[in-house]
Amino acid sequence: MILYYAPLSVAIASLIALEEAGVDYEACKVDFKTTEQRSADYLKINPKGRVPALVTEQGIITETPAILTYIAQIQPTANLAPIADPFAFAQLQAFNSYLCATVHVAHAHKLRGSRWVDDPAAIEAMQKKVPQTMQECFSLIEAELFQGPWAMGQQYTVADGYLFTVSEWLEGDGVDITRFPQVADHNHRMRQRPAVQRALQYRQSV
Amino acid sequence: MILYYAPLSVAIASLIALEEAGVDYEACKVDFKTTEQRSADYLKINPKGRVPALVTEQGIITETPAILTYIAQIQPTANLAPIADPFAFAQLQAFNSYLCATVHVAHAHKLRGSRWVDDPAAIEAMQKKVPQTMQECFSLIEAELFQGPWAMGQQYTVADGYLFTVSEWLEGDGVDITRFPQVADHNHRMRQRPAVQRALQYRQSV
Repeated sequence: MILYYAPLSVAIASLIALEEAGVDYEACKVDFKTTEQRSADYLKINPKGRVPALVTEQGIITETPAILTYIAQIQPTANLAPIADPFAFAQLQAFNSYLCATVHVAHAHKLRGSRWVDDPAAIEAMQKKVPQTMQECFSLIEAELFQGPWAMGQQYTVADGYLFTVSEWLEGDGVDITRFPQVADHNHRMRQRPAVQRALQYRQSV
Repeated sequence: MILYYAPLSVAIASLIALEEAGVDYEACKVDFKTTEQRSADYLKINPKGRVPALVTEQGIITETPAILTYIAQIQPTANLAPIADPFAFAQLQAFNSYLCATVHVAHAHKLRGSRWVDDPAAIEAMQKKVPQTMQECFSLIEAELFQGPWAMGQQYTVADGYLFTVSEWLEGDGVDITRFPQVADHNHRMRQRPAVQRALQYRQSV
């Protein structure tokens, strides 16, 4: 398999899942500095012009929640998602959906505002609200969604790598992670995992 | 089970899935006109203050992608998701994620702009771009994601009800659905399904 990634992107969550699963893969960097994600060659891989994209023998998978559960499913011995338990799996899916459609979207209003508006003043106004929206998102994660000691409870899952990846954006978004003690402690424990350390090496290829 | 919904919201996708699955459930309307979704009682059900929320014997599930795959999983005879085939399931998950985190988010910039910005002029500027972003989203669905005759190919899945629900927003967003022949034909065929017709009765409770 080949995982197309950008060093500071959400693709880190998929790299963590691949490392935790212990599957063979190759990581292939997409250079956002030269807008390679919009190149004709890359658009053949992912017509959305985004990362991550996972090339498998059967075809290409995009979207972090899809890639994460796929990795968990093809490597069941790694116990990365409770797929056989519909309710527990739904909780994992809900957590991943919230990160994908609410938290990541809130964060994207800082650097990707032009997706939703053209006026430069409006883009600037959007950026001003990012610290507030990200703080609200993580307040909800801390109070309601995070089960502890891992995101979904006793069992480490692909949601942990996803939460860790997104929590790494807080500082740059002007939010102090220590306001969320469980999330901060989770972030600290994640850094100690060898799989996470291996995945984070790809961040250094900026 | 109880499905909390609002008549014109994305909860219609979950109602369609429940009807297609043929499971027993009760639909409970959340009145957005009186901002009931922010009431203390409803926040106990879904602290995000949104619909849908599915109350099950084991607990509450939020987020459309999570609810859809849960319904498919608890009623396997209805064949609403290829859960046993990791690659096919990943394609379904990727489709649902795109609807959730890109298409629904693009649409939300029309009426829910205050989630991401406070300045009224910026909210207005956001609204102006909605026809363009929704058109771009559906161009990609039409050209790249829609497999035909159903969203994911030969087999009808929960993604079909989700696509149908979101495609119903196009007219209000200033986009002519007939620009996307496959999506328009899909919309037409969906309306002929008895389960969809039953689910659409809840839209009339506005």
